[in-house]
Amino acid sequence: MADQSHIIVTEGILPAGTWAFVADRFSPFAKETLAKLVRFVQDECMPAEELYHAQVEKGAKRWQVIPPVIEDLKRRAKQLGLWNLFLSKRHYPEWGTDLTNLEYGVMAEVMGRAGHFASEACNCAAPDTGNMEVLAKYGNKEQQEQWLKPLLAGEIRSSFAMTERFVASSDATNIRTSLRQEGDEIVINGHKWWISGAGDPRCAVHLLMGKHDPDNPNRHAQQSMVIVPANAPGVKVVRAMQVFGDDDAPEGHMEVIYENVRVPLKNLLVGWGKGFEIIQGRLGPGRIHHCMRSIGTAERALELMLRRVTDPRKTTFGKMLSEHGTIVADIARCRMEIDAGRLLVLSAANMIDQVGAKGALRDIAYAKVMVPNMALAVLDRAMQAHGAEGICQDTMLAAAWAGLRTLRYADGPDEVHMQQQGKIELRRAPALWERQKQLEAKRDQLFKQYGTPRAHI
Amino acid sequence: MADQSHIIVTEGILPAGTWAFVADRFSPFAKETLAKLVRFVQDECMPAEELYHAQVEKGAKRWQVIPPVIEDLKRRAKQLGLWNLFLSKRHYPEWGTDLTNLEYGVMAEVMGRAGHFASEACNCAAPDTGNMEVLAKYGNKEQQEQWLKPLLAGEIRSSFAMTERFVASSDATNIRTSLRQEGDEIVINGHKWWISGAGDPRCAVHLLMGKHDPDNPNRHAQQSMVIVPANAPGVKVVRAMQVFGDDDAPEGHMEVIYENVRVPLKNLLVGWGKGFEIIQGRLGPGRIHHCMRSIGTAERALELMLRRVTDPRKTTFGKMLSEHGTIVADIARCRMEIDAGRLLVLSAANMIDQVGAKGALRDIAYAKVMVPNMALAVLDRAMQAHGAEGICQDTMLAAAWAGLRTLRYADGPDEVHMQQQGKIELRRAPALWERQKQLEAKRDQLFKQYGTPRAHI
Amino acid sequence: MADQSHIIVTEGILPAGTWAFVADRFSPFAKETLAKLVRFVQDECMPAEELYHAQVEKGAKRWQVIPPVIEDLKRRAKQLGLWNLFLSKRHYPEWGTDLTNLEYGVMAEVMGRAGHFASEACNCAAPDTGNMEVLAKYGNKEQQEQWLKPLLAGEIRSSFAMTERFVASSDATNIRTSLRQEGDEIVINGHKWWISGAGDPRCAVHLLMGKHDPDNPNRHAQQSMVIVPANAPGVKVVRAMQVFGDDDAPEGHMEVIYENVRVPLKNLLVGWGKGFEIIQGRLGPGRIHHCMRSIGTAERALELMLRRVTDPRKTTFGKMLSEHGTIVADIARCRMEIDAGRLLVLSAANMIDQVGAKGALRDIAYAKVMVPNMALAVLDRAMQAHGAEGICQDTMLAAAWAGLRTLRYADGPDEVHMQQQGKIELRRAPALWERQKQLEAKRDQLFKQYGTPRAHI
Amino acid sequence: MADQSHIIVTEGILPAGTWAFVADRFSPFAKETLAKLVRFVQDECMPAEELYHAQVEKGAKRWQVIPPVIEDLKRRAKQLGLWNLFLSKRHYPEWGTDLTNLEYGVMAEVMGRAGHFASEACNCAAPDTGNMEVLAKYGNKEQQEQWLKPLLAGEIRSSFAMTERFVASSDATNIRTSLRQEGDEIVINGHKWWISGAGDPRCAVHLLMGKHDPDNPNRHAQQSMVIVPANAPGVKVVRAMQVFGDDDAPEGHMEVIYENVRVPLKNLLVGWGKGFEIIQGRLGPGRIHHCMRSIGTAERALELMLRRVTDPRKTTFGKMLSEHGTIVADIARCRMEIDAGRLLVLSAANMIDQVGAKGALRDIAYAKVMVPNMALAVLDRAMQAHGAEGICQDTMLAAAWAGLRTLRYADGPDEVHMQQQGKIELRRAPALWERQKQLEAKRDQLFKQYGTPRAHI
Repeated sequence: MADQSHIIVTEGILPAGTWAFVADRFSPFAKETLAKLVRFVQDECMPAEELYHAQVEKGAKRWQVIPPVIEDLKRRAKQLGLWNLFLSKRHYPEWGTDLTNLEYGVMAEVMGRAGHFASEACNCAAPDTGNMEVLAKYGNKEQQEQWLKPLLAGEIRSSFAMTERFVASSDATNIRTSLRQEGDEIVINGHKWWISGAGDPRCAVHLLMGKHDPDNPNRHAQQSMVIVPANAPGVKVVRAMQVFGDDDAPEGHMEVIYENVRVPLKNLLVGWGKGFEIIQGRLGPGRIHHCMRSIGTAERALELMLRRVTDPRKTTFGKMLSEHGTIVADIARCRMEIDAGRLLVLSAANMIDQVGAKGALRDIAYAKVMVPNMALAVLDRAMQAHGAEGICQDTMLAAAWAGLRTLRYADGPDEVHMQQQGKIELRRAPALWERQKQLEAKRDQLFKQYGTPRAHI
Repeated sequence: MADQSHIIVTEGILPAGTWAFVADRFSPFAKETLAKLVRFVQDECMPAEELYHAQVEKGAKRWQVIPPVIEDLKRRAKQLGLWNLFLSKRHYPEWGTDLTNLEYGVMAEVMGRAGHFASEACNCAAPDTGNMEVLAKYGNKEQQEQWLKPLLAGEIRSSFAMTERFVASSDATNIRTSLRQEGDEIVINGHKWWISGAGDPRCAVHLLMGKHDPDNPNRHAQQSMVIVPANAPGVKVVRAMQVFGDDDAPEGHMEVIYENVRVPLKNLLVGWGKGFEIIQGRLGPGRIHHCMRSIGTAERALELMLRRVTDPRKTTFGKMLSEHGTIVADIARCRMEIDAGRLLVLSAANMIDQVGAKGALRDIAYAKVMVPNMALAVLDRAMQAHGAEGICQDTMLAAAWAGLRTLRYADGPDEVHMQQQGKIELRRAPALWERQKQLEAKRDQLFKQYGTPRAHI
Repeated sequence: MADQSHIIVTEGILPAGTWAFVADRFSPFAKETLAKLVRFVQDECMPAEELYHAQVEKGAKRWQVIPPVIEDLKRRAKQLGLWNLFLSKRHYPEWGTDLTNLEYGVMAEVMGRAGHFASEACNCAAPDTGNMEVLAKYGNKEQQEQWLKPLLAGEIRSSFAMTERFVASSDATNIRTSLRQEGDEIVINGHKWWISGAGDPRCAVHLLMGKHDPDNPNRHAQQSMVIVPANAPGVKVVRAMQVFGDDDAPEGHMEVIYENVRVPLKNLLVGWGKGFEIIQGRLGPGRIHHCMRSIGTAERALELMLRRVTDPRKTTFGKMLSEHGTIVADIARCRMEIDAGRLLVLSAANMIDQVGAKGALRDIAYAKVMVPNMALAVLDRAMQAHGAEGICQDTMLAAAWAGLRTLRYADGPDEVHMQQQGKIELRRAPALWERQKQLEAKRDQLFKQYGTPRAHI
Repeated sequence: MADQSHIIVTEGILPAGTWAFVADRFSPFAKETLAKLVRFVQDECMPAEELYHAQVEKGAKRWQVIPPVIEDLKRRAKQLGLWNLFLSKRHYPEWGTDLTNLEYGVMAEVMGRAGHFASEACNCAAPDTGNMEVLAKYGNKEQQEQWLKPLLAGEIRSSFAMTERFVASSDATNIRTSLRQEGDEIVINGHKWWISGAGDPRCAVHLLMGKHDPDNPNRHAQQSMVIVPANAPGVKVVRAMQVFGDDDAPEGHMEVIYENVRVPLKNLLVGWGKGFEIIQGRLGPGRIHHCMRSIGTAERALELMLRRVTDPRKTTFGKMLSEHGTIVADIARCRMEIDAGRLLVLSAANMIDQVGAKGALRDIAYAKVMVPNMALAVLDRAMQAHGAEGICQDTMLAAAWAGLRTLRYADGPDEVHMQQQGKIELRRAPALWERQKQLEAKRDQLFKQYGTPRAHI
């Protein structure tokens, strides 16, 4: 098969310059997969998007029925080999796909054009992706057999039960959910919310973070992670949290109370006190995936904007919107900011490929902050060009904006990341002072050597 | 009764400096009314807000039931003399309240703290306010008897049917709804959307803009405005437009098709061809009211933020949010921007009082652009400080943000206002060139007079 | 004499709306003075500006010669009664002018249009203004006779020697200059810089801040202020600090070393340990004056921009600059931001008038932060519209920008003010929590009263 | 020699992630050169910077004396093989260095750390670089022998005489300088300014743009370019333009009047009417070089900031600046923005390498707009952290800021580039409409196929 990857440029997925910058890091397999994925998303997913939303139930069955079209698309993606692309063969030789983070990053962007929807079709949707990684990395054979395999097959879905109500659980040491061992069972009591996917009738399992040992002086050894079947007695899905008025059915972001939930001890992941370690490993690459999907969303918003401002029906005061200088400038600004943000993410993805997520934390953090802010700005401009249509249910803009808005605090608010990174940058100061001392010594010597008088210092 | 108006400062409604700047423009009556209003909004409306939302129906009756609490609050407001405050006695001696625009502006801000809710309680909610002004100004006795009186009494509600689907109707010359006279009837055909309030079971009347004479070479004489009973045959409410996922029931922003709707000729406002003139008169002060309500919303968001960042349960990494320097700076920025924005609006309101809305168009336009943008920024910071809670249904922040977002394009997008005002500012250029010519003549003379050589020019 | 004050609008000094907002706070005397001042600045100062700069020497005499034109303008201003306008009769009945802070604020803006230049012509230029206030407030008869009177007469000029090299002296407790009493003399040793005006041959006196009692446990009782004749032996003016390459001759911002300078003990202001108290009193209104001058500068920059973009010789690609939409939007943005900033300052000035500088600290702080940032943005847009001409010596833009840039850290950097003010705003939190508690009690009662079930909380 | 290129990371020249992203595009030669260059700039140029400025004369000889240290550094750079790095061997096999644009881009950044100074030491300073490219590409043998060779040897310097006073010459069709052939001579009359380098005593030649055929209906065939010896009779250097008060001696940006200057006809470049074509070819890569130098400047400013905020002498109110949260956030923002900007430039440089400057115009344009704005923001934060020291002559910050500010309009103002690029982006609209048509057809078919009813459209 000839290299079809230039479709990435001709379809306007990446600017030619960006593709020229990264194409030679793509394997032939990745290029072929990417070309197929572009066709699949553009030709099969995007036309089905409105249908998907129409198939979400409005009334009592809202949390019970899965839109048929998504299951059909999943079958189709599997057939095309566009399945589980997120899982890297390098790390998970048994199940993974042969893609680097950089390669998958671009694919995540392509899927991100059709929101959560195309990602789900390719079994690459959060929170399943992170959960599968956890199970692949930390699960034992039995746990993998029972939960990972059906997840990889797209037969069930899953939740990640971390965030708690009434405390600031972005600091994991604040977690209050208690895990108590009774014989060979674990008894769970806690109050969580924003448990994504827990409303979905296909959701079969929660990976739950709690504290087994809250008084451990090592604050990072208090937490443990447990596999909780979604239908275990005592798991009470209380209500759907809304994101700017949207409940995201049928998946939802649910408030869940765990009341004396009992699971067998073998459902413990790795061992007591390993919870913190597990979530640390879960976050890095996932953040990049969010970023890349955001960029896809921003590109799509820009496309909507380009169409809107050239719509002859939307002429005001005798001019099409595209004839207004400020609109033209806004479009260029969108393009510039998207391109810069994308390069930051691709560079971070490449760094993960070269030195692992741990060595790329800094690159990940900056991408994690910059890209959602950029994408929000792009979407806001696109909304503004659409007027009322831009904030209603008739385009993807408002819902996508709301979804992107959550990324500014999810996995740590911007402010926290920037404080951490600023402090890391500050660690360079002592070396800089040292270098300055040397420089000043040389400077003084040079003045002497040339006999040039120094101005008063 | 002693002057209670200092409550405006002690309750944190206005900063002391702002109140000191405008208090002497308030009549004793206005001060007394303001003090009462503060108490009413803070003590009676705000505690009832959650109840109101709980009383909005979820299912089939969503568009049929009015939350009982609002009708009770309306009775209460009437009793307190906090009723129809928006309508100025100066312009409407028969019905109005004795308040200037400046005085009412501050009251609109107070009501804006409780969103649309307190405004409705005081019969000061859009679109009724604008519609009542239109009927008071342009309606004849019979029209006023039939529609204005029950509106003023808060017995019915109303819609303003202007915006059309499929065209850019912010340019009124693009209106396509046709008005055809047949005998002593008017036949209406058109497709509108974003008709606020048209979902409300109390909505009894639409003021509708259409074209009777689409080929009139005077593009501003083509439009006419007609009173349409909401229950007239052929008025089809098609669906509710959502604002970031919110349908705003039971009022709603509806898509409405008018299909061969027939109304008696006497329902024409003023006369054929007067539609454009009517909407021009409707816009000015209304924009200021939106602005002031927005400021109230921003103040409330800042109060939520102040509470949130001092919530000891939300401590992360050993620090309350209020101990983070960037949070403190964000709070100060909110305060600074709110205060500056408010002064701009109050100055515009004062200008309306002194020279009328026409003479204050420029002041209104700048307030109209600056304030919603400011309020959005304030709310965004407050949301960010709240994390996930900030974008869900548990605070007013997300819904208020979404509502404010519409103000950036409603009544003309920011971009259009800025172009218009920029061009108006540019009209100063010829006089400046003239002055410069005189300045240069004097300059040359001075050089000569002092005998100072000029550098090469 | 008829009220000529409408000149303030017709000459484009203030927008009509702003003038309408404050005119009734102006006394007839203030209106008359303002009208005269507008004429003086526009017709006499501005045409002389280029001449002034041409009369500043380039070579060895750079710090020795005063441009003759400024002394002539001073005579003229005195004659017109436009002299010492900054000094309020209310506080200094003996010497002051009968103007409120609000009234003077507008006049400072008018003078600010011609930079430092018109202010000096009216004897209203820093640092003399602050120094005269200090001497009027804290000086004894003898000190006033010797130093205040010739300053008020414009015969000498003065410096304020506060900032020190090598330490962060914006925190006055870091001051290191030592004041040692020997008999009836004070011996001064210290290293200061950015001593404005100390290069001026007319500069006769420095008000100097040092520490007499550096070990005093009360860190604000360590400092004292001393009157130092500029020609006292040991006062060494080392070099001129440059502001973006500009040395501001003949006044300059000088580095000054005080080496065993001896002054008589009677030159101590108020008494030992009063230095901190004195500078506290000096800052408030002065900041407002800087702000107002900045606004005048911004208005002038906007006028330059309006001329530039309508200059037919500057047509590019067939369009005048004023025909580009983004330029028009920039102009409107300038107008909007200037007007909002000005209202903030006028409101602060009014607050000083009503409750004194101490009670207006908050208002002053916000104005102090917002206005220079706004003015910098306006000037930057004006520079950008001018291209290369905008950053060179041929317009006032670059020099004015550089001057404004210093205001973002002078008298405390933006960041410090914002932290302080943010913390002050945070003091509202306890009362808000209390109010919320009451609100929730009422809310719960209302739910009960109406029998409405609450959603899960 | 072992690969020393990791110095690029250990010395903090590039973040590890960025180097990981581009290192494999560097040849061994480029890596070796880069490592040498880092040492040369850090260890030899930067310590000599203050000396260079001290050797610039203050008085009458300001435009006559070249600081000796720069000539010594030039010898040293030549010796190290760090000479004429800008000229690519690929395009100029006879004279060039074997570096790609990407490779040179990183080196330009390294030189940019020491401002114009290190660039000059390596004979890589504007405007000589562009002029050498023009002569190498468009000059004939004789012209190259006479002017290119001594330029390549660093024996003479040159100017590019394009910008004209009194017209908007950024639109080259506005050029008014006349070129008239008289026999075998060309007579030149014109009034230029901002002719960089024309003040330098080493400047031996101007490449001058004028019009030979101003009435040619093809507006791009009117211009021609002529080689003008700097000492030709009639070349009058009138004055030095200042950039924010700085005259940049001894090179300067001069106002130059050409009065009946006569040069031999053989000084015409290429032929009559080729002027426009020549300047088009000159601009692309040069813009990238400016960008990369700007990034080096920004990195250096960040290093200064890191030192300043950790300077224990600058403690205020008991805290080092680096302990303030907003400062830490500012530092992180600097880092993030620099990294994103750099990737944009490197991507553009890579695009030039792959498809040539013409194919990379878009990438160049975005880099050209984004990077100076980013660098200005970084420098502004660094200045703010320095207080008064940041805007004076004691650090490189103010002068560097002023230099960067010129890049926002030089080679076309931001606004023009953004309009052009926005319009180019808009060209995608027709294809997007076409794709949308296909999507809607599929969508309708899917709805039919699934039998799902569509909501009202």
